[in-house]
Amino acid sequence: MGVVTPRTATPPKQDRSRATRQKLLESAVACLAARGWSGSTVSVVAEHAGVSRGAAQHHFPTREDLFTAAVEYVAEERSVALRGLRPQGRAEAVAALVDLYTGPLFRAALHLWVAASNEPQLGGRVAELEARVGRETHRMAVELLGADESRPGARETVQGFLDMARGLGLANLLTDDQGRRERVVAEWAGIVDRALG
Amino acid sequence: MGVVTPRTATPPKQDRSRATRQKLLESAVACLAARGWSGSTVSVVAEHAGVSRGAAQHHFPTREDLFTAAVEYVAEERSVALRGLRPQGRAEAVAALVDLYTGPLFRAALHLWVAASNEPQLGGRVAELEARVGRETHRMAVELLGADESRPGARETVQGFLDMARGLGLANLLTDDQGRRERVVAEWAGIVDRALG
Repeated sequence: MGVVTPRTATPPKQDRSRATRQKLLESAVACLAARGWSGSTVSVVAEHAGVSRGAAQHHFPTREDLFTAAVEYVAEERSVALRGLRPQGRAEAVAALVDLYTGPLFRAALHLWVAASNEPQLGGRVAELEARVGRETHRMAVELLGADESRPGARETVQGFLDMARGLGLANLLTDDQGRRERVVAEWAGIVDRALG
Repeated sequence: MGVVTPRTATPPKQDRSRATRQKLLESAVACLAARGWSGSTVSVVAEHAGVSRGAAQHHFPTREDLFTAAVEYVAEERSVALRGLRPQGRAEAVAALVDLYTGPLFRAALHLWVAASNEPQLGGRVAELEARVGRETHRMAVELLGADESRPGARETVQGFLDMARGLGLANLLTDDQGRRERVVAEWAGIVDRALG
């Protein structure tokens, strides 16, 4: 007791810092999904996370840093969860992939993309982020669907299916589209299955 | 001369009024596509159209009136143009339908949808507008693709394809996605053709 070396004192502080960072990232996605880009400032997110504005700015010097990091972090979390799935057949894989685009993460990402399309300082970073997340989602989809990308057309089949999933997410933005979506997904699970052979 | 009855004086005035209205609607879509919802006020649109703010407000009392009318007007224009197409086979129909989602109209509609998802006074009106435009686009797609909706699954096949087209539009928002899109569309034209029988 009383002999606390820096070595043993450091981890708890690092843990607290990591926990604060994580709360900020999760709050940023929640705020973006609920309030859109114009309603989501660093102060709003800090308050939602129960963290001071100064602490938020220590972790993320700019608003752009905070929101691009947040969308990437939550996308990675989703990706880890999805990789843990062991879908029973392609219909289940199709449904799980479509679900990626109907929750708060997709809403948040959509707000960020749309804001980025009119804000040059955000545009480049979000385009880069989208490319990274897109590549990762594609890899995951190939794995879950058991697609053989050495077959001609298989790559484009998976890509087009992910575009459809994104479009279904967009259709869900203003109204609860679950009933229609389930019928479309049921039909398209069969179409994708036959197309992938 | 000098004997101008109201009956003969009215048409030119009506024509001018119609032309002003049309310029405002087209400007509203152009501004929304280029600047997003937060950058598109009635004043910005009036200036773009070369019309006074008062004249703009005479035609469209509120900002919501102007922008929902604008997206509906341009969607109708596109719909008339598309109905005039006589596609040679389904591949051409598929390409023409995907093109609907890659121009300024889709960008404008996307900004409006995303803004509406966080603004209650806009949400209901845009959801209604989206439902009307969606039904019209579906009818048009059924016609252009020569789909027989009495066949089980044909309706969902067309719907899922339009969701894919919407997703391709979204992917085109931040980066020019034309090369990838053309490969996806080429592959999916065949898949949709086989699925519709």
